[in-house]
Amino acid sequence: MSQTLESTKTAAANLLEGAARAGVDVCFANPGTSEIDLVSVIDEVPEMRPILALFEGVCSGMADGYGRMLDKPALTLLHMGAGFANSIANLHNARRAYSPVVNLVGDHATHHLAYDAPLASDIASLARPVSNWVETPTSAEDLLKLGQQAIVESMRLPGGVSTLIIPADLARAQTAPHDQIPTAPMASPALSEDIERAAEVLRGDGQTALYLGGRALRKEGLTAANRIAAATGCRVMSIPFAGRTERGAGIPAAERLPYFPEDVLERLEGVKTLILIGATAPVSFFYYDGYPNSLVPEGCEVLPLAQPEHDLVTTLEQLAEAVSAKPDAPEAPELKIPDPPTGELNPKTMGQAIASLLPEGAIVADESATSGGPAYYFTRTAQPHTTMNLTGGAIGMGLPLAAGAAVACPDRPVIAFQGDGGGMYTVQALWTQARESLNVTNIICSNRLYQILQVELARAGATSRGAKADALTSLGNPDINWAKLAEGMGVPGVQTTTAESFHAELAKAIAEPGPHLIEAVL
Amino acid sequence: MSQTLESTKTAAANLLEGAARAGVDVCFANPGTSEIDLVSVIDEVPEMRPILALFEGVCSGMADGYGRMLDKPALTLLHMGAGFANSIANLHNARRAYSPVVNLVGDHATHHLAYDAPLASDIASLARPVSNWVETPTSAEDLLKLGQQAIVESMRLPGGVSTLIIPADLARAQTAPHDQIPTAPMASPALSEDIERAAEVLRGDGQTALYLGGRALRKEGLTAANRIAAATGCRVMSIPFAGRTERGAGIPAAERLPYFPEDVLERLEGVKTLILIGATAPVSFFYYDGYPNSLVPEGCEVLPLAQPEHDLVTTLEQLAEAVSAKPDAPEAPELKIPDPPTGELNPKTMGQAIASLLPEGAIVADESATSGGPAYYFTRTAQPHTTMNLTGGAIGMGLPLAAGAAVACPDRPVIAFQGDGGGMYTVQALWTQARESLNVTNIICSNRLYQILQVELARAGATSRGAKADALTSLGNPDINWAKLAEGMGVPGVQTTTAESFHAELAKAIAEPGPHLIEAVL
Repeated sequence: MSQTLESTKTAAANLLEGAARAGVDVCFANPGTSEIDLVSVIDEVPEMRPILALFEGVCSGMADGYGRMLDKPALTLLHMGAGFANSIANLHNARRAYSPVVNLVGDHATHHLAYDAPLASDIASLARPVSNWVETPTSAEDLLKLGQQAIVESMRLPGGVSTLIIPADLARAQTAPHDQIPTAPMASPALSEDIERAAEVLRGDGQTALYLGGRALRKEGLTAANRIAAATGCRVMSIPFAGRTERGAGIPAAERLPYFPEDVLERLEGVKTLILIGATAPVSFFYYDGYPNSLVPEGCEVLPLAQPEHDLVTTLEQLAEAVSAKPDAPEAPELKIPDPPTGELNPKTMGQAIASLLPEGAIVADESATSGGPAYYFTRTAQPHTTMNLTGGAIGMGLPLAAGAAVACPDRPVIAFQGDGGGMYTVQALWTQARESLNVTNIICSNRLYQILQVELARAGATSRGAKADALTSLGNPDINWAKLAEGMGVPGVQTTTAESFHAELAKAIAEPGPHLIEAVL
Repeated sequence: MSQTLESTKTAAANLLEGAARAGVDVCFANPGTSEIDLVSVIDEVPEMRPILALFEGVCSGMADGYGRMLDKPALTLLHMGAGFANSIANLHNARRAYSPVVNLVGDHATHHLAYDAPLASDIASLARPVSNWVETPTSAEDLLKLGQQAIVESMRLPGGVSTLIIPADLARAQTAPHDQIPTAPMASPALSEDIERAAEVLRGDGQTALYLGGRALRKEGLTAANRIAAATGCRVMSIPFAGRTERGAGIPAAERLPYFPEDVLERLEGVKTLILIGATAPVSFFYYDGYPNSLVPEGCEVLPLAQPEHDLVTTLEQLAEAVSAKPDAPEAPELKIPDPPTGELNPKTMGQAIASLLPEGAIVADESATSGGPAYYFTRTAQPHTTMNLTGGAIGMGLPLAAGAAVACPDRPVIAFQGDGGGMYTVQALWTQARESLNVTNIICSNRLYQILQVELARAGATSRGAKADALTSLGNPDINWAKLAEGMGVPGVQTTTAESFHAELAKAIAEPGPHLIEAVL
C-alpha cells in the first residue's frame, strides 16, 4: 500500500492495522458510540477478528484466557468509563495472572470532556488499579505510537494489562500509519551469582523448596525443577492460584500450596529455605486471627531467585546445571484414570468423572471453588492438560476465561469448571460461546451456596447462622435452572443429579463440537 | 440497651445498628470473606433487611432505584475492589441521578494490606470517579463516626454516593456505639436577589424557558413551574435524562429535551433566556462533527438560578410569587388512554399497550433506548406515574433499578422497560426479583440489535455496514430466549410477537403479584 493511500485513513483504521501487523488480531468487543470509528473500519482490516460479548466482564475474561494460552494480547474494545468498569474484575484476575491484554477504551472527544456530558468519568482513575500501563494520547499520531507501545508493554515479561484511552476525535482524525512494528521485550534469566547462591543452598543440608509461579509452571520449567529435585532432594511447590499450570500424566508435578493459612503452614513445615522462582513469598489469602500475615514458616529463609519478569525456564535450567542435575527426564505422574463413578453426585464423584473423561490436551478454566478439590486431586494423573486458576480471587472468571482459551486454541477441548456463585457473575459468556461455536464444556458446580462464606462464618466463630446470614450465603430460593439459562443463550444445557448421568452427559458434551452446559447438582 | 452491653459489640454490629437508628435499614449485598463480620451480626440487627443480589451491579442499581424513590440511602455491601468494581457502572448512573447511596466495601485487615494478597487493589482509586465522598477509617471508633458521616453526606442535597472502605480488622474490633444520630443537611432555596433577577427576565419580552432537573421534576416543582408559565408565557423544559420525573394525567408537564444535538437545537430555537433550576446547561450527549459541544442556542443567555443542591421546589414557588402567578392549579394533561393495539408488535403498538394498561401510581424504570419513544409519548396522558431515566448513560440499569424501586415502594406497581442489550448486562436482577417476590413487570424490547450503534454508524457516514460491523451491533445469532432466561431465575417469562398478545400478557403480569417478564419481539 502506498503512503498516499494509507494517509487517507483514519487513526482508528491505522491503529487496528498496526495491531494486526504486530500479530494482535482478535478483539473482544462491546463498543458504544465513542468507539464508532473503530467499529466502522473493522471490516477494512481483514486480519482482525472482532468477537462481541454482551457484557464487558466477558470481554476482559476472554482476553485473559486468550493471553494466558498464547502469551500474546488480544484487544478489548470498551465503551468509556462505565464500560471499562464492567471489565475491571476480570482485568484484576488478568493482572494477577500476568496475562498480556490491550484495552482500547473510547472516550469523549478531547474538546468535549470539559462539558461533563452524562457518560464522562475519570477513566484513568478506574484503570490504574488493574493496569500496568495507562495512557491517553494527545494527537492522532500519538494515538498510533501509544497503540504500538500498549502492545509492547503488555508483552513485557511476565505480561501485563495495557489500557489505552482513545478520545473519539483522535480516532477519527486522518493520519499516516505508524511505521514501527513492536517487538516483544526480551527477558533474561536470573543473575549467575544468584543462581550459584541458590545452588549452594540446594547442595546444603536443610530442606529446601523451589516455589514456582508464572511461566515456571509450564512443562519445561516443571521438568527442570524436578531434575533439580532429583539431584538435590528439594521439594517443588507451586503458588496456589497460578495463571497457567501444565499437569497430568507425563508432566513433572509441583505441590500446589493450599488456601487456608493453617494448611499452608502445615505443608511448609520443615522447609528451611524457600527459593522463589517467579513467585512472591506465600501470604494468607485473607488475614485470620491467630495466624500470621506471611505464611513463611518461622526460621525459614526466603531466597528470591527470579522475579516473574525473568526468563524462568532458563533460570531453572541453569540452576539444574549448577547442581549437576542429570539430563534424564525426571519422575512424572503415570497415567491413572479413575473408573466412571456411580451413585451420589458429589464433589468426589464429579471429580472422578472429570478425571476419567478429560481429553488429552484439554484446557481447564478452574473456578470450582469449594467443589473442586477432588477433581484437582484425581486429575493429577489424568491425561496431560492445562489448568488456569482464579489468580486474583475475583469470581466470575471461569466462563469467559474458558471462552477466550477456546478462541486461542480452537483445536483443544476446553472445560469451564465453574462454581454456581461465580458463574452467575458473567453468565453472558455462554452467548458468545454459542455465537462463536466454541468448544467449551461448561460444568456448573451447583451447590446453591456461597459455600466459602458459610465456611468463613464458621471460622469466624459463628456457632449457628441466623436466617438473614443464611439467606446472604445461599443461592437457593429460587434455585437457578442452569439448563434454561444456557438454552436461553443458545447453548445446549442439561441438569444432572447422579454420578452416572453426570458422567454420561460429560462424555457426550466433550464428544460433540460447540459449547455445552452441564449443571451438576451437588 | 445499656452502654455496658453495647460495648461488648463489634464495630460491625454497631455500624449496622447505627445505620438502622438513622433510618437506613435496607442493605443490597453481595458479601465476601472480608465482610464476614458484617454478615455474622446482621441477624442481631432486626431492623436491617439484607437483600442478596447475584452480581454487584444489581446491588448498586437497586440502591439507585431505592434512593431515587425514597430520598434516603440504602446500604450496599460489597467485596473489596473487585466486587466494588462490578457496582461502578450503576453507581455512575446513581451519581448522575443524585441518588443517596451508602456503599460499605470490605477490605483486607489494615496490617494485611502491605502483603499484597491476591484480592488487594486500590479501592479508593476505583471509588472516586463515582463517589461524592470516599473514606477509609483508621480505627474502630473512626469507622463508626465515618459510618454516620457517610449517611449524612449521601443525603446532602441533591443526594450523592458515599463509599466507606472497611478494613476487616476494624469491623471486628470491639467498640462502644457512636452516639450521634445523623440529620440530613437542610437545603436553602436560591438567593432572593437571584429569584428577583429571574422574575425580571420572565416579565420581559424575550422567550424564556425554565430548564428543570433534580427534584424540580416532582409534582410540586412542576406545578410551580407551570404556574410561572401561566403567568409569564415561559416554557417549562426538562433535562433529557432525569433521575425521577412525575408525569401523566393531572401532573403539569415539562417538555423533555431530546437526545441528538440537531433535535435539541431545534427544540430550543427562539429561546432567549434559559433559567437553570437544578440543571446544568444542555450539552451534546456525544460530540458530533458539525454540531457544537454546548447546545445552548446562539444568542441565548443562560441564567443559573438554582443548583441541584438548592431547595428547588421552594425556589420555584418563590419565583411564582415573584411573577405574581395565580395560586390556581396550572394546566395539566387530561387522562387519555389509547385503545388496546392490534396487529404488528412494534415500538408504537408496544407503547400504546403500555399507556393503555399503566396503573395509577406506577413506577417506570426506563432503559428502553431506541424502542421507547412512542411509549414515552403515549404515557404523557396515561395514569399519573413516575419515570426514572438512564441518567448516566451506563446501560444495565433498568432491571435492578426497577427492583430497588419495588423494595422502596412495595405498594406501587413497577415496570422495567428495558432494551435487550442493556438488559443482558444485569440480567441477574431477575433472580433477586423472584427471591424477594417484587412486583416488577419486566418488558424486554427485543429488537436483537444494539440499534443505537447502527444509527450511529449511519450518522458517522457509513453507507453500508460490513459483516463484522454488523455482527458487533447485532444481538442475533443466536437470538436470546428471554422467557427461558427468566424462568431459569424463577421469574415467569413469556415471548410475545403481536400487539394483541403483548397487551394480553402485560395485563396479566400487572394484575398478578410478583415479578414477570415479557419479551416483546420487535
